[in-house]
Amino acid sequence: MVDKALGGAGLRGQVAGQTALCTVGQSGSGLTYYGYDISELAAVAEFEEVAYLLAHGELPNAGQLAEYKARLKQLRTLPQAVKDVLERIPASAHPMDVMRTGCSMLGNLETETDFSQADQHIERMLALFPAIVVYWYRFSHDGVRVETDTDDDSIGAHFLHMLHDKKPSPLHEKVMHASLILYAEHEFNASTFTARVCASTLSDIHSCVTGAIGSLRGPLHGGANEAAMELIENMQSPDEAEQTLLGMLERKEKIMGFGHAVYREKDPRNAIIKQWSEKLAAEYGDSRLYDVSVRCEAVMWREKKLFCNADFFHASAYHFMGIPTKLFTPIFVMSRVTGWTAHVKEQRANNRIIRPSADYTGPAPRPVPPLAER
Amino acid sequence: MVDKALGGAGLRGQVAGQTALCTVGQSGSGLTYYGYDISELAAVAEFEEVAYLLAHGELPNAGQLAEYKARLKQLRTLPQAVKDVLERIPASAHPMDVMRTGCSMLGNLETETDFSQADQHIERMLALFPAIVVYWYRFSHDGVRVETDTDDDSIGAHFLHMLHDKKPSPLHEKVMHASLILYAEHEFNASTFTARVCASTLSDIHSCVTGAIGSLRGPLHGGANEAAMELIENMQSPDEAEQTLLGMLERKEKIMGFGHAVYREKDPRNAIIKQWSEKLAAEYGDSRLYDVSVRCEAVMWREKKLFCNADFFHASAYHFMGIPTKLFTPIFVMSRVTGWTAHVKEQRANNRIIRPSADYTGPAPRPVPPLAER
Repeated sequence: MVDKALGGAGLRGQVAGQTALCTVGQSGSGLTYYGYDISELAAVAEFEEVAYLLAHGELPNAGQLAEYKARLKQLRTLPQAVKDVLERIPASAHPMDVMRTGCSMLGNLETETDFSQADQHIERMLALFPAIVVYWYRFSHDGVRVETDTDDDSIGAHFLHMLHDKKPSPLHEKVMHASLILYAEHEFNASTFTARVCASTLSDIHSCVTGAIGSLRGPLHGGANEAAMELIENMQSPDEAEQTLLGMLERKEKIMGFGHAVYREKDPRNAIIKQWSEKLAAEYGDSRLYDVSVRCEAVMWREKKLFCNADFFHASAYHFMGIPTKLFTPIFVMSRVTGWTAHVKEQRANNRIIRPSADYTGPAPRPVPPLAER
Repeated sequence: MVDKALGGAGLRGQVAGQTALCTVGQSGSGLTYYGYDISELAAVAEFEEVAYLLAHGELPNAGQLAEYKARLKQLRTLPQAVKDVLERIPASAHPMDVMRTGCSMLGNLETETDFSQADQHIERMLALFPAIVVYWYRFSHDGVRVETDTDDDSIGAHFLHMLHDKKPSPLHEKVMHASLILYAEHEFNASTFTARVCASTLSDIHSCVTGAIGSLRGPLHGGANEAAMELIENMQSPDEAEQTLLGMLERKEKIMGFGHAVYREKDPRNAIIKQWSEKLAAEYGDSRLYDVSVRCEAVMWREKKLFCNADFFHASAYHFMGIPTKLFTPIFVMSRVTGWTAHVKEQRANNRIIRPSADYTGPAPRPVPPLAER
């Protein structure tokens, strides 16, 4: 809903800078990273190829990819001081607060003191973020100090391995690649824009990412996949799903996982994760959540012309892989850190401090009354 | 310098929303909080009156002020888990990283789960921020676990008391009031805008403030008072100061503490802190840093028509009060948290997610080459 009185509110449609990283809704399936269509990337690439692309502007060749992955593997050791911090965060904490705090703490121990160090800090965050959230989760929920030095080939497999104490199946590793690719980058969304505003003051990379995590935490931004899970988990059948949704629509309740601020007709990421959710359902041996999700998609389109966004089928897909709902948004962080940090580097390369104006709506100038006369 | 190719870069002059909190460069001396001129507030009010004003839109009467200060005093106990975190941050860390991490950790322990709790969390941060930075500073530098439950009447006195293990003089307490008032609020500056972008996703108050701290950390934003201190501390006389500055100007080196993104002719905060610096110099018994600062002001105006901003005379003022240079910007945080959080509440009250657009400058659509062919 546009509030006319607010005019430029939300900066919708206002150009806040340039980017070479991403187009949203312009060509191909609707989302490109450095000119590559998201559908093609998700079909053929590993997440590490996309992370490399976002960091360096070009896809790696086989040798570069092998080196990059080997480097990331070497960076998985969580500093003891970060473990100490994570052990002091209660199980009841919001997992995004844990990510935000883990990232911020890391910045105290391994501070970016010169922008020439950016890439090494970016790789370290990329390598450590799965361990930050899983170490806290396993310690606070299971009383286990998880081993973070796995030899898994990919970030997605590393995450699932620490979470479940065993190497994931090839299917699960493949789905993690696709999922992390889908979430990696999305132009000037609110969390990325937060990172760029912070970068524009020439602050350090951990401040930029810490701020971005805080913005992604908001229910209008990240968290829609968790909300989608909460919606579907109690639906026992497609028919029940349809009745529930119709009731919610009639009561004008907010239904998460549908529609998008930029896309108008479909979210190009949906078809990809939906396909993986279907395959996972077959492997899982109980397709209820997938079938329920398919019906939700049909009902929302039929009733409201609202399409599933990237988050909706992520809920069932993650669930089929045994991922607790509260870790859904932290996975988004593990992926989007690639986009955020690429934007930070881009902002630094052609910087002007981001400092907009405001329309004043407050009191006219007035004298300060003495305390005794108020 | 305006980069024409960038157009909207930095959003300079673009309206990003409405505010009733502050005007910059519009009336009176040039800075008002809710219609009250900064010069008047700094002359007659305590910082807690201004904090109350920013939180509630009106200055407190005597009873409200007494209650408010009593409440803030009750909130000074640092949770053990925050102490544990601060004890694990090395002395070499950037103090703004410490503030960012302390604030983020607090959000894990005392999470804002409903916006109706905002005021209580804001008061808690206001009460705790001095303790967060001083506890870390004294522990890491002096090996002392400082007592944070002082009975000082004001936030500024509380800060100085913990730092120096003794109650400050009335003059020092008064200067802290003025200084904290001057730094409390400044419209849509980059850190405040960071807080509003975060708030626009409906994220929690600790995420908003954590992000804002990260932005204030940048050398283009906060930190100018520290840079000013580094500039003047080695100047042994006004004549030496003049020679040093002329040399720097000739070499086109950046000189911090002068000029402003919004103000064109003077920064209304300068005259106020300059006056206090002069008084402190007299008490300190060695006016070298004040005299040097006065000469710097004259030279920069004569040579470049650049005026001192709020930060320049803060350097000598803080130094005369025995405050280590690395704690200058954290004091800014102790103050500005009032402005940031007032903007968060204002954003929430009339919200639209802040999501601007970007001009795309990247590669045209291109196919993904197979790994073997790259």
